[in-house]
Amino acid sequence: MPLLIKNGRIITADADYHADIYCASEQITRIEETIDAGSLPDDTEVIDACGKYVFPGFIDPHVHVHLPFMGTSAKDDHESASRAAIVGGTTTYIEMICPAPDQEPMSAFNEWQGKAQGQSSCDYSFHLGVVRFDDIARDQIRTIVRDYGIASFKVFLAYKGALNISDENLFDLLTIGKELGVITTAHCENATAIAAMQHKLLKEGKTGPEWHEPSRPVRVEAEGVHHLATFAELTGAHVYAVHTSCAAAINEARAAQARGVKLWVESVIPHFALDKTHAEQDNFEGAKYVMSPPLRDRENHDALWAALYSGVISTIGTDHAPFDFKGQKDMGKDNFTLIPNGIPSIQERVDLLYNLGVRTGRIDLNTFVRVASTNAAQIFGLTNKGTIAVGADADLVIYDPDHEHRISVTTQESRVDYNAFEGWDLTGRAEVVTVRGSIMARAGRFVGEPGRGMHIKRQPNHF
Amino acid sequence: MPLLIKNGRIITADADYHADIYCASEQITRIEETIDAGSLPDDTEVIDACGKYVFPGFIDPHVHVHLPFMGTSAKDDHESASRAAIVGGTTTYIEMICPAPDQEPMSAFNEWQGKAQGQSSCDYSFHLGVVRFDDIARDQIRTIVRDYGIASFKVFLAYKGALNISDENLFDLLTIGKELGVITTAHCENATAIAAMQHKLLKEGKTGPEWHEPSRPVRVEAEGVHHLATFAELTGAHVYAVHTSCAAAINEARAAQARGVKLWVESVIPHFALDKTHAEQDNFEGAKYVMSPPLRDRENHDALWAALYSGVISTIGTDHAPFDFKGQKDMGKDNFTLIPNGIPSIQERVDLLYNLGVRTGRIDLNTFVRVASTNAAQIFGLTNKGTIAVGADADLVIYDPDHEHRISVTTQESRVDYNAFEGWDLTGRAEVVTVRGSIMARAGRFVGEPGRGMHIKRQPNHF
Amino acid sequence: MPLLIKNGRIITADADYHADIYCASEQITRIEETIDAGSLPDDTEVIDACGKYVFPGFIDPHVHVHLPFMGTSAKDDHESASRAAIVGGTTTYIEMICPAPDQEPMSAFNEWQGKAQGQSSCDYSFHLGVVRFDDIARDQIRTIVRDYGIASFKVFLAYKGALNISDENLFDLLTIGKELGVITTAHCENATAIAAMQHKLLKEGKTGPEWHEPSRPVRVEAEGVHHLATFAELTGAHVYAVHTSCAAAINEARAAQARGVKLWVESVIPHFALDKTHAEQDNFEGAKYVMSPPLRDRENHDALWAALYSGVISTIGTDHAPFDFKGQKDMGKDNFTLIPNGIPSIQERVDLLYNLGVRTGRIDLNTFVRVASTNAAQIFGLTNKGTIAVGADADLVIYDPDHEHRISVTTQESRVDYNAFEGWDLTGRAEVVTVRGSIMARAGRFVGEPGRGMHIKRQPNHF
Amino acid sequence: MPLLIKNGRIITADADYHADIYCASEQITRIEETIDAGSLPDDTEVIDACGKYVFPGFIDPHVHVHLPFMGTSAKDDHESASRAAIVGGTTTYIEMICPAPDQEPMSAFNEWQGKAQGQSSCDYSFHLGVVRFDDIARDQIRTIVRDYGIASFKVFLAYKGALNISDENLFDLLTIGKELGVITTAHCENATAIAAMQHKLLKEGKTGPEWHEPSRPVRVEAEGVHHLATFAELTGAHVYAVHTSCAAAINEARAAQARGVKLWVESVIPHFALDKTHAEQDNFEGAKYVMSPPLRDRENHDALWAALYSGVISTIGTDHAPFDFKGQKDMGKDNFTLIPNGIPSIQERVDLLYNLGVRTGRIDLNTFVRVASTNAAQIFGLTNKGTIAVGADADLVIYDPDHEHRISVTTQESRVDYNAFEGWDLTGRAEVVTVRGSIMARAGRFVGEPGRGMHIKRQPNHF
Repeated sequence: MPLLIKNGRIITADADYHADIYCASEQITRIEETIDAGSLPDDTEVIDACGKYVFPGFIDPHVHVHLPFMGTSAKDDHESASRAAIVGGTTTYIEMICPAPDQEPMSAFNEWQGKAQGQSSCDYSFHLGVVRFDDIARDQIRTIVRDYGIASFKVFLAYKGALNISDENLFDLLTIGKELGVITTAHCENATAIAAMQHKLLKEGKTGPEWHEPSRPVRVEAEGVHHLATFAELTGAHVYAVHTSCAAAINEARAAQARGVKLWVESVIPHFALDKTHAEQDNFEGAKYVMSPPLRDRENHDALWAALYSGVISTIGTDHAPFDFKGQKDMGKDNFTLIPNGIPSIQERVDLLYNLGVRTGRIDLNTFVRVASTNAAQIFGLTNKGTIAVGADADLVIYDPDHEHRISVTTQESRVDYNAFEGWDLTGRAEVVTVRGSIMARAGRFVGEPGRGMHIKRQPNHF
Repeated sequence: MPLLIKNGRIITADADYHADIYCASEQITRIEETIDAGSLPDDTEVIDACGKYVFPGFIDPHVHVHLPFMGTSAKDDHESASRAAIVGGTTTYIEMICPAPDQEPMSAFNEWQGKAQGQSSCDYSFHLGVVRFDDIARDQIRTIVRDYGIASFKVFLAYKGALNISDENLFDLLTIGKELGVITTAHCENATAIAAMQHKLLKEGKTGPEWHEPSRPVRVEAEGVHHLATFAELTGAHVYAVHTSCAAAINEARAAQARGVKLWVESVIPHFALDKTHAEQDNFEGAKYVMSPPLRDRENHDALWAALYSGVISTIGTDHAPFDFKGQKDMGKDNFTLIPNGIPSIQERVDLLYNLGVRTGRIDLNTFVRVASTNAAQIFGLTNKGTIAVGADADLVIYDPDHEHRISVTTQESRVDYNAFEGWDLTGRAEVVTVRGSIMARAGRFVGEPGRGMHIKRQPNHF
Repeated sequence: MPLLIKNGRIITADADYHADIYCASEQITRIEETIDAGSLPDDTEVIDACGKYVFPGFIDPHVHVHLPFMGTSAKDDHESASRAAIVGGTTTYIEMICPAPDQEPMSAFNEWQGKAQGQSSCDYSFHLGVVRFDDIARDQIRTIVRDYGIASFKVFLAYKGALNISDENLFDLLTIGKELGVITTAHCENATAIAAMQHKLLKEGKTGPEWHEPSRPVRVEAEGVHHLATFAELTGAHVYAVHTSCAAAINEARAAQARGVKLWVESVIPHFALDKTHAEQDNFEGAKYVMSPPLRDRENHDALWAALYSGVISTIGTDHAPFDFKGQKDMGKDNFTLIPNGIPSIQERVDLLYNLGVRTGRIDLNTFVRVASTNAAQIFGLTNKGTIAVGADADLVIYDPDHEHRISVTTQESRVDYNAFEGWDLTGRAEVVTVRGSIMARAGRFVGEPGRGMHIKRQPNHF
Repeated sequence: MPLLIKNGRIITADADYHADIYCASEQITRIEETIDAGSLPDDTEVIDACGKYVFPGFIDPHVHVHLPFMGTSAKDDHESASRAAIVGGTTTYIEMICPAPDQEPMSAFNEWQGKAQGQSSCDYSFHLGVVRFDDIARDQIRTIVRDYGIASFKVFLAYKGALNISDENLFDLLTIGKELGVITTAHCENATAIAAMQHKLLKEGKTGPEWHEPSRPVRVEAEGVHHLATFAELTGAHVYAVHTSCAAAINEARAAQARGVKLWVESVIPHFALDKTHAEQDNFEGAKYVMSPPLRDRENHDALWAALYSGVISTIGTDHAPFDFKGQKDMGKDNFTLIPNGIPSIQERVDLLYNLGVRTGRIDLNTFVRVASTNAAQIFGLTNKGTIAVGADADLVIYDPDHEHRISVTTQESRVDYNAFEGWDLTGRAEVVTVRGSIMARAGRFVGEPGRGMHIKRQPNHF
């Protein structure tokens, strides 16, 4: 159905203007000062965006949906996760493929793609997780990049004995990435140090969620970033540090960028909104706030904002990883290392950033769009996403900057049994959300066709 | 006359797509996949941009045109400078108002504005130079900001006994800037140290242009940036370091940004294209390459590119300051401190950056547009410039990426008697250049209406 | 009278051993495993140091005694200050000559030397303060260095309109220092920024001592250190930043040392022992804790210890500047900028450092001696001081590590009417203190010949 | 035989004076202005040191003597190595115990100790190399520390598949080191990155010694230092980075020290005297200059001197590892990775540092003694070494600052068949060298009792 959005204030990373937008197909086909609805097909849906912002659909570069874990699995599937994303203004997400240690890449790709296809209502892509590999895997990886539209890898420097990649494999993978023009994203924490400190803390009877952060202090993360940067510099590969949480890690990234290392930095919304004290709450409540890298001392917030402002941090995602408090998080009741990691925020990300960033004056509207959408599109080769332009996918967010609402588990789309931001009052909300020209959400409710999301194939762009 | 640009590949800071652009007025009024020329007014000029890039008009944030100096004056006037700019793809420049020590701001503004009005063929704005001030000046500055569309100041930490601002005045000005939301741009070199070192060198008989750099080594500039950053941090003012030349200065800027100082960094094309050895040429040839901060050791180039790539440097201008080799530069034949400073490059900037940056793969097309146009527009509040969007001024550059040409003084528009890049072979050229919808240049020749440029009033945007 | 010290544990910067020390004259003449007192002259005084440390006399490189201020003068004279020093284990201090703005250097030297001569009981030297100068002053400075045994300058980058040196004079002075091999010590805070911020705070009605620190925040000091380092690098001069208080300033110093700048760093005991909250006490009590640079947030302490440990900080002095709380500090009752600066600690320095540093395990005994004595001797050319060796002056501190005492104004030697460390309980005390072989203190009481101290002439040693 | 050294100018880390030194036993027993030889035992050997320096015996904290390698062994044994050391002024060295991968620590200690005992003419100690360990090894390590006088460990972050320690073992070992007060010394280069780059270079046919440096560029070493510092910070252990070669690594160390990490830095004399071009010589000559970390670009020298001057570098050793050019180095004729690493300099170290450091004015005499002797003694708990004081071992070097000589393989004591400094002309030489009171060298010739050296037991001193 054709779509006409009239009278909105269009905000992209580099522009701020009033115009009408027409989408004859799934893409934006025309932008003009005033488009007369009468001249358009009769079935054109007309939306009046007067007094509203029109943003490009937001992109979350870091989510987990299909996430097997200790015999159970994360609570969301693509149906619920994509609904939550869309209601919150996110129209595309990139999910992490996390293969089992002995799973071949192609099998993992098929498994993850199979879970998303026909289930996700928003568009999606994947980072191909690489845990370890042999020659067969190496061949499959090349195939996946060449034929299946995957243009980014994901590795874990953390999670010893599980997802952790060896230095040999890391060097090899980056070499392949350099050759193929594929960027490698990395979870940067030193696995061995964490394992040793966890062991020590548990031995001392320190088992509660408040010990999660001390088991992986900021230097562990800084070490990870430094290590990634070194290997990137030696191989010439392009890399991307995910969910950076603290000044110490940021400083390592900044130093690497200064040396010319092609390193991008992501942070995630929980690290801007929350802090270590949340994980220190009594009665195991802190477990709701366990993620890795952990929430940090509030002193780090200024450094994160400064890094965002000055371009050291390019993107803000979520690391959405949806585990229930009851039945999942509480597997770690007596041992914080067994608490499944994750602070779900896929629905809240955009509003939280708007409130914490734009409304406080810390960032302007262009920067808001840049870090929550455009940069992710440019870094990861989502060439039809991340801006409002003719030919771009008609992923649009008509945003009411004045709407007031309160976050609650009772109204969220995610299936998780708690909300880390319960009771927070926010101003600003996505009023209408479209994905490739279809209206998927209105006034905070999902109204779209479930499972309509597409796998967006990407071309390597990091040569 | 209405204008239709068809079939171009449109490149902005955040997009890369094919579409047609229509400008019914001086602004872009419509962008659409395909616009049928037949549906437009008969007098519509149609340009086929097939195989070409369509860039937003480039912006030079740092030029000197009217520049009285030791009883003489720089060679260009706005007629020639703007012609050179336009032929080279620059459609807007911001000129520095450099008042005489005892000149009141309003008088200076009127003088500089008088020289540009009706003379410049491209659009222009001004940074208001502030050398020193009393209560009268303070009042006039407020008026100029409020009523005359000036939203940036310029100060010199260099040029002792001439343009150099005192620390008292700097602190005061930044305080005013903070209050008014006006950004302060600054030439960052320690004036006293330079004066002392010049004195020492001359006393030792070191009088040639090759001594210009040693008289103001990198630490002098780093000191300037550090000083500016400190005062910005203490007052909360937003600042912008102009023509940054070296790793040492960049490092100070980066450290300040990490502390949260609102500091932007400009570099200029000569610092990316040339180096210290150019100023060391025999027979006083080096004088052609005397500017301040001086050309540096080539080792600094990597640091500049890394800073550009990672966002520490936001803009690349020229510091165009057009003095003849014969009759002007040679006033310093026996004393390098008397050589008028400047390496004219207003016509060459865009092509040089395209060749050194894009064609080598150092930066991509989006980044090219960002640093040569969009960022300047955003930082300095040129709200209708710097991108291609409906409502934006129709300042467009249709760029042929394959055209080959050789730089020469014989073909340049500037009135200066030499070209610092004489004989350089470049690939890529602006084929058509429009300013607010009018075609001003074609195929490297100025074809526009002289003096049509407008003073672009800007609103303070640095609160 | 000959002196024999038996059975002590001798601690120097590089050694730790048991031996007997004999001083036939004012110098140490013999060190031997066991010296039989019977073989010595009958009048030999024998001290048994069994169970005690024998340290070289401590050196305070930064004290004020003669200090005219706003028509009044600091409370100590050399008689009381030197008594306090000696009782506390300090056997040599270097006083700052602070000339009046229009006073010639020779006159200032004579004035300060006249106040000390015959009055001080400990040995002393001077840093020659230079406020501004002309050719006459320049000549006198050379004479003073050549003939009067002064080998260090002192400048103030702070104190606008008073002691503050201009950049021109600073460059010149450093050039002279380089030529003569004289090190220049500097109070590093940007004078103009402080004046502007003081003005602003007072205008806002912020008049109490708690506003002293906000009027000169850490970046003001960091700027001072950076500025000094730049000028040192440009001239090749050797410099010494006095009373460094915070991580920000230390970081600038460390960066300069990394670049090869010949920069030494001093801190003072109040910055290790106290913090900003002391100056925020009610009822104007905070005024007792007003000095410049001001006491800082406690977070800086770790950075200071790390800098001390790793050699970035070479010396710990006092900046003893003795003003009464009643009648002097209270001149600033309604205006913190009028509070005379100073936290007297000349008597407490050694014990405080022993307690905060050695007893906590932060530094070892060798480091203790190094930073409280040896380094000052080496940096400032006190060639017969700072260690225990044959030929060295017999300045010795026999220190009882177990003695417990409480600091109180009632038992101090300084004439000031308060003690900033009132009620602090310390362990460790100088039991016997000798200056050039004479016993000057015993058990915390001065027992020496008043006024016996000598002006120690120094030779330039910074080429 | 009693020994009296008269009229020398005694230089220690903190003093510079004239006195006579008497050693009744193996220790210094008396230092006095003038000691009358007539009052001493008849058999007292009297040496006139007039016009000479008397230094404490120099200490080399990093040598290899017993060094099995690929079925062969390094050329020196303790007999030749200690002779070379002594003739060059080094009276104590600390050798690295490098166990075979499966060798138990006690067995390794016994093997290394067995090679030294009765063979070395100078005093010696060991760093206990730890390659990997189990519970048995852990117990033996504790025993060796407690009962055998070993107070330092050595680990290799380099040498993948051979000496390289795993991260798990490193964390454990540092934890043990923290508990026992034992400092851990580390070869800091990332093993995996080197292996990967070696592999790549060889595959490209880059087999000559000139490819050694590119196979392990500066970032590989910086990574190693950063990694060590992280693990030290997390465990609280004290660590020591051996043979640091470049600015990049030094900067990581400096940053760690600033954070409060207890990290000491060693460099070695080849890194101050030689550079990468030496390893690039034709005809495989470059192989003589292959060591790890490799010789670097000369630009790093300034950073090393600045680090030495400012205390970031504490010690200068040799990493003496004596392999013949013919028969050993040439095993790597077709494959640079097979060239045995090492640039022997145990005899030349002191003279080279004196020439490059003291004679050029880069460091003073006290600093010379500090970095070549005293600091090593303090860091490694050689409590009777490193200074000249009563009770200290009578390890003395009477040094003629004016003696001129030329380095040559024909006159060296080491058994290696080349000298990396062949033909260098130096000024300054040890005229007399004593170890514990015995004269071991005179005028550049070994005259002592072979095999008289003692194993110096050390107590842990890093709590």
